[in-house]
Amino acid sequence: MGLPEEVKAAIRDEIEECDKYPDPFCRELVSALSEYENVDEKYLLCSNGAAEIIFRLSLALKPKKALIFAPTFADYEKALHTVECVIEYYLLEEENEFCVMDNFLEKIDKDTDIIIICNPNNPTGQLCRKDFLKKVLDRARENNTFVMVDECFMEFVDEPQDYTVKEFLKYYENLLILKAFTKIFAMPGLRLGYGITSNYELIEKMRLCGQDWSVSNLAQTAGICALKQEKYLAETKQLIKTEKKYLINNLEKMGFVIVGSKANYVFLKANNIAQLEKKLLSKGILIRSCSNYINLNAEFYRVAVKNSTDNKRLIKAIGEVMKNENSNDSN
Amino acid sequence: MGLPEEVKAAIRDEIEECDKYPDPFCRELVSALSEYENVDEKYLLCSNGAAEIIFRLSLALKPKKALIFAPTFADYEKALHTVECVIEYYLLEEENEFCVMDNFLEKIDKDTDIIIICNPNNPTGQLCRKDFLKKVLDRARENNTFVMVDECFMEFVDEPQDYTVKEFLKYYENLLILKAFTKIFAMPGLRLGYGITSNYELIEKMRLCGQDWSVSNLAQTAGICALKQEKYLAETKQLIKTEKKYLINNLEKMGFVIVGSKANYVFLKANNIAQLEKKLLSKGILIRSCSNYINLNAEFYRVAVKNSTDNKRLIKAIGEVMKNENSNDSN
Repeated sequence: MGLPEEVKAAIRDEIEECDKYPDPFCRELVSALSEYENVDEKYLLCSNGAAEIIFRLSLALKPKKALIFAPTFADYEKALHTVECVIEYYLLEEENEFCVMDNFLEKIDKDTDIIIICNPNNPTGQLCRKDFLKKVLDRARENNTFVMVDECFMEFVDEPQDYTVKEFLKYYENLLILKAFTKIFAMPGLRLGYGITSNYELIEKMRLCGQDWSVSNLAQTAGICALKQEKYLAETKQLIKTEKKYLINNLEKMGFVIVGSKANYVFLKANNIAQLEKKLLSKGILIRSCSNYINLNAEFYRVAVKNSTDNKRLIKAIGEVMKNENSNDSN
Repeated sequence: MGLPEEVKAAIRDEIEECDKYPDPFCRELVSALSEYENVDEKYLLCSNGAAEIIFRLSLALKPKKALIFAPTFADYEKALHTVECVIEYYLLEEENEFCVMDNFLEKIDKDTDIIIICNPNNPTGQLCRKDFLKKVLDRARENNTFVMVDECFMEFVDEPQDYTVKEFLKYYENLLILKAFTKIFAMPGLRLGYGITSNYELIEKMRLCGQDWSVSNLAQTAGICALKQEKYLAETKQLIKTEKKYLINNLEKMGFVIVGSKANYVFLKANNIAQLEKKLLSKGILIRSCSNYINLNAEFYRVAVKNSTDNKRLIKAIGEVMKNENSNDSN
């Protein structure tokens, strides 16, 4: 859907103000976010994209050992490596549809300094239920383990109240939730994210783990305006829902296996065709091969849910590739 | 002077593109900078304001001991503290007009992991000559010491070729120069800076010490356009020169001691009046008290050189404060 028109207008109006330093505390944005998220203002730290929070958290905590999923978003590992953290992977199994299982809890012990959970997970789009995450938080607290839950894609989930850990924030000081404007407001180019935690001391530490002015004037202004776009939000969610159904139905018809996919992307296994991404690229379409994710291979792909025209084009292109493949086979 | 009109227009045109991720390598901007700075493209790393380079450099090198000036810009210390670096201060003496002296070289030894030099220095506006800095670089290299020279204010200096270390870049892999768009292009709200070094390995390390997308689309676009504004640049330099002369002349007439001040700010000692900033604040004018700088005290101030109207207002206000003071004294 692109950026909301109101947000574009707000950015245009703010350009004149770029000869001043941005507010390091993002006060107006924090106030708007506090209302939007229904959390205390003191729980919030804004950042230059959600990614900045991951790096600041690593630097603030300097964990020696981390427990993360495989596969999951690559930036957790990148950030943890900046402080020489050792990574333990919890392997998500295909036979369990890449869901985390109860044995995850046994992996948490006194040596575990941090756990990072992406919910829904990237690239699988698979979810953890909040009752399970509560067990993780309890066990983590017993072991002095910090837990970051990345909910950057939670806005796209049906019934998010069954999965978000937001209600636990005030009871667990060992919890930080990561959120972004990038996905739901279609503004990755502007760079705006935030962390939510009841651990004030940690927020102050994270402030010191980077510059004071990391969030630009324009990103702050865009964020404040974006939070008011309720109609745009509802339309985006509906669009993704409808279009994802279209993609999944058609991909399944063509023999692909769809797993997870609870966010704004479809995670698929293409065991019926080799090098799908290469064949689509020759038609001018780029899909994300998951071959470089730990614990995945070249059979797996993540496909963005886009608008109706783009999605139809993708399905048509995959159809052509499959047809070609079959006629080659029968030759 | 505010942002150049062309830059504002370029930002407006780019807003539509903010629904895409920014180029993590800032390729177009790097190409334009390479021409502007007359250095190889491979020497350049762009960042979310110059401040981000300081933090990435600290994280990439993890120095155990640093040598920095006192007073100097506070962010060096803040960044070094994120990696638990011990700071050794070289005290700049008022009797030497806060210039660095030859005995600085003796402070550099095998334990010195990094030296940070602000040139011209903030808040004094005092300069180091390049022949002296060459001696620093040589001695640093002998001791495996890295040197960062912050030239963010060099654009405002007369005869910069006598002070910049740019010509040494290709001979010293232990050198990084810090630059910003913030000051000379009046765009602190946009966040854009860069580092220059011939040490490719360090650039790759610094890339890993933060997210891939730290420079927003709008900042990249603004930077590319700003570098073409030769007329604006020349006018800005002339304006600062003329207005700084006006400020210095009038401040000296009123009995203030002016030191350094080779950048776009005036560094003054107000030993003729107490709590000048408080008295000016009551007239709606904020000047920077330097009382919280190490090795300075409440007698020192940094005053921004602004446009003619603002500068006249400042001089008038200070005149009134002084007059009041004198009449109080004679009561």
